[in-house]
Amino acid sequence: MKNFFLLLFSFLYFGAQAQGNLPQQDLPNVVLIFMDDLGYGDLASYGGYPQQTPHLDQLAASGMRFTNFYAAQAVCSASRAALLTGCYPNRLSISGALMPWSTIALNPNEETLATMAKKKGYQTGMIGKWHLGAKAPYLPTSYGFDSYFGLPYSNDMWPVGYDGKPITDTADRKFKYPPLYLLEGSEPMKLIQTLEDQALLTGMYTERAVEFIDRHKESPFFLYLAHSMPHVPIAVSEKYKDKSGTGIFGDLMLEIDDSIGEVMTALERNGLTDNTLVIFTSDNGPWLTFGNHAGSSGGLREGKGSAWEGGIRVPCIMSYPGVIPAGTVSNNLAATMDIFPTMAALLDAPLPGQKIDGVNILPLLQQVADANPRDHFVYYYDANSLKAVRQGKWKLVFPHLSQTYLGTTRGNDGFPGIYKSVPVPLALYDLSTDPGETFDLASQHPDLVEALSALAEQYRKTLGDDLTKQPGTEKRQAAKMD
Amino acid sequence: MKNFFLLLFSFLYFGAQAQGNLPQQDLPNVVLIFMDDLGYGDLASYGGYPQQTPHLDQLAASGMRFTNFYAAQAVCSASRAALLTGCYPNRLSISGALMPWSTIALNPNEETLATMAKKKGYQTGMIGKWHLGAKAPYLPTSYGFDSYFGLPYSNDMWPVGYDGKPITDTADRKFKYPPLYLLEGSEPMKLIQTLEDQALLTGMYTERAVEFIDRHKESPFFLYLAHSMPHVPIAVSEKYKDKSGTGIFGDLMLEIDDSIGEVMTALERNGLTDNTLVIFTSDNGPWLTFGNHAGSSGGLREGKGSAWEGGIRVPCIMSYPGVIPAGTVSNNLAATMDIFPTMAALLDAPLPGQKIDGVNILPLLQQVADANPRDHFVYYYDANSLKAVRQGKWKLVFPHLSQTYLGTTRGNDGFPGIYKSVPVPLALYDLSTDPGETFDLASQHPDLVEALSALAEQYRKTLGDDLTKQPGTEKRQAAKMD
Repeated sequence: MKNFFLLLFSFLYFGAQAQGNLPQQDLPNVVLIFMDDLGYGDLASYGGYPQQTPHLDQLAASGMRFTNFYAAQAVCSASRAALLTGCYPNRLSISGALMPWSTIALNPNEETLATMAKKKGYQTGMIGKWHLGAKAPYLPTSYGFDSYFGLPYSNDMWPVGYDGKPITDTADRKFKYPPLYLLEGSEPMKLIQTLEDQALLTGMYTERAVEFIDRHKESPFFLYLAHSMPHVPIAVSEKYKDKSGTGIFGDLMLEIDDSIGEVMTALERNGLTDNTLVIFTSDNGPWLTFGNHAGSSGGLREGKGSAWEGGIRVPCIMSYPGVIPAGTVSNNLAATMDIFPTMAALLDAPLPGQKIDGVNILPLLQQVADANPRDHFVYYYDANSLKAVRQGKWKLVFPHLSQTYLGTTRGNDGFPGIYKSVPVPLALYDLSTDPGETFDLASQHPDLVEALSALAEQYRKTLGDDLTKQPGTEKRQAAKMD
Repeated sequence: MKNFFLLLFSFLYFGAQAQGNLPQQDLPNVVLIFMDDLGYGDLASYGGYPQQTPHLDQLAASGMRFTNFYAAQAVCSASRAALLTGCYPNRLSISGALMPWSTIALNPNEETLATMAKKKGYQTGMIGKWHLGAKAPYLPTSYGFDSYFGLPYSNDMWPVGYDGKPITDTADRKFKYPPLYLLEGSEPMKLIQTLEDQALLTGMYTERAVEFIDRHKESPFFLYLAHSMPHVPIAVSEKYKDKSGTGIFGDLMLEIDDSIGEVMTALERNGLTDNTLVIFTSDNGPWLTFGNHAGSSGGLREGKGSAWEGGIRVPCIMSYPGVIPAGTVSNNLAATMDIFPTMAALLDAPLPGQKIDGVNILPLLQQVADANPRDHFVYYYDANSLKAVRQGKWKLVFPHLSQTYLGTTRGNDGFPGIYKSVPVPLALYDLSTDPGETFDLASQHPDLVEALSALAEQYRKTLGDDLTKQPGTEKRQAAKMD
């Protein structure tokens, strides 16, 4: 099958060279760096304290920083499915975090950023956390990536407890984890080792990312670097231990920042900086219940696992010298799903025949006056649960049960706090003056409540969560694994 | 007296030419732009939505943006006294907002940024809101400024209501305002007109700022531009009406941003950009009770008039090409009080003989490794009321009554909501993971509560608010006016 695709891709590549109104130059390389549980407030450039992130500051200074940028869902697998396909995860029938024993995977029939890049003749590689299928053939090389190195799912899905000791209580299903395997190769994927020291992860990923860039400097490439950190259990390599003076999370942010620095240095060394789009963002907000082992949502409400802003609004920096003006900021709405059609525009690649939810934000990147490609955003959390909708500055939250870390015992030193669910009433927030979602204005604006409810109803009808309990009409199926 | 000072300044100027480790160049110009009630979340570069602030984004891209920068008190006069002197306002016996009938003023014996600059031979000018003395001789020209144009106090201290109509109810003292005078000149100050159309203010200030720069391009100058906006009553000139598409506050932010753009253009046109330190910051957070006529604290808790982060943490951008690296961010603690000793270091000017509270943050501006000049910050609100203390990432809030806009009727279209005071208990916040101040950790860290309480006690003893009710030992007196 791979040869067939290569032939097909070659045909499409040499058959469709027309460029849009972008500079006539070589096809750009794309480096997509996706962090795990990194919060809106974890970078210095987003008000992070006391994180020192000089390389990420430099990346921001060389490109554009987004302040109203959303992951597609505030949890891992769903967010990653959306990133790679440009679709709300509900459209793909992927939700929440897949477990090692889950029986579904991202459908290999979906077009991904990698299959798109292959069509244009790119070398494609993925390094890091996959989490869209736990075993072959549902691993990255079935989704357009030529090569892969990384963990198949989350780094906390392993048979040890938060204290690092093996879990012997097998009565609870959640503790029946298999060993945490590191995979490597193209096809067939090789299981190279059982990962026991998570402190090595960031460095191993970084080393392979640099190698990938060095190896592919002659041809256009797409590199997807999905760091496992700072998802718990957080771990930092010897070089960074006690270097921040602010504890292990600060040490880890130093290591992560240096990783991005090494990637940028590799681009520079190979003379690729000016022809590479670098995207840095995160899969969801901080996992606040882990207290000092979690990051910060920077004053936004709550964190990972909720439809509040702190769960789903994430940092995003994009750099592409000559196309994106240096040192710029966009406060327009945008989302990880928008990367798909934007990259398609940059590569002059065709969009999939099937419907996607992303919009091309190239006009924002190029600072076209009055450009505002994303009209609205809907907040799902579970498979079929539309919890909120945002249009412009208004966010309407529908009644639901929401996780909270307030009023609970907060975690410390790697041990989690206790989850609590609280009922949330209908509420309307003006995110322009109240990004912390504290002041309900629903009673003052019944017209807005009505209009935003109608918008949400459109999504319920087509993507599920229909209040009349009918299935969504535009959903596609996930792959079923044995 | 002015001649005496000129002689003294000349002596000091020619007598003390030694430079520190800064580049040997002409003395830098300093342009200090101070906004009124502009919140932490009101600039695009601080996550502001939907504000479009391209010139301020550009200023940030050319210099350093601070993410943990504080005004000295969350209210107007106190904040301005601190900015100009480098002292906690309590040290100067200035607190709150002076009223037109107040009988105290900033003591003219205090050294100010302007008297410091005069000692080094600078041309000094102030344009905008003064608010440190309501009448001569307690106006800017008595405090080191060669010239002044602006309002003596706040733009809401005038004899009209929030609907713009004259107030006829004189029973309440707060309505007994005199006409709002615009003052201009050097000495004696001239009353040039009664201001009736506040929509002209931003433009008039900008025009005079540009004139000042053009006029003084040959000699080093210090320009203090203290905009009256976006303090209510907000008003926007014809050119910007309905231009943002997001209402009058958005229109006003466009006008303010253009004002900064015009100042930067004037520097550029005169070839002064590379030798000018530009500082942009605000006197306190947004006045949230005014709803859609107020800005945003960007997810920080509450706003103006409180010791919560939203009241007192403000945007701050500094640009000085060649000294401050472009496109950088500092998340170290810093405060408006630090501008005084920092400017003294840049100008190689002596510090006052009297104690000040600012610290020289030049090492931060020059990105000296591990520099962290400000160890802590204390939050006062009233004359003698220390409400909180921050050291590193920890903020300890002491029990007090605090204004809140939650649970009240929020204001709309220029009419204010209703203030409410609520009792606040002792609470410890980790601002690194919880900048929204939502999760009290006091019971988990009794050692930190004790250490921060002891630190606060030092300030209570020296600056007043001593729990044993003894007066502060290091306070100085404000000037008493007739």
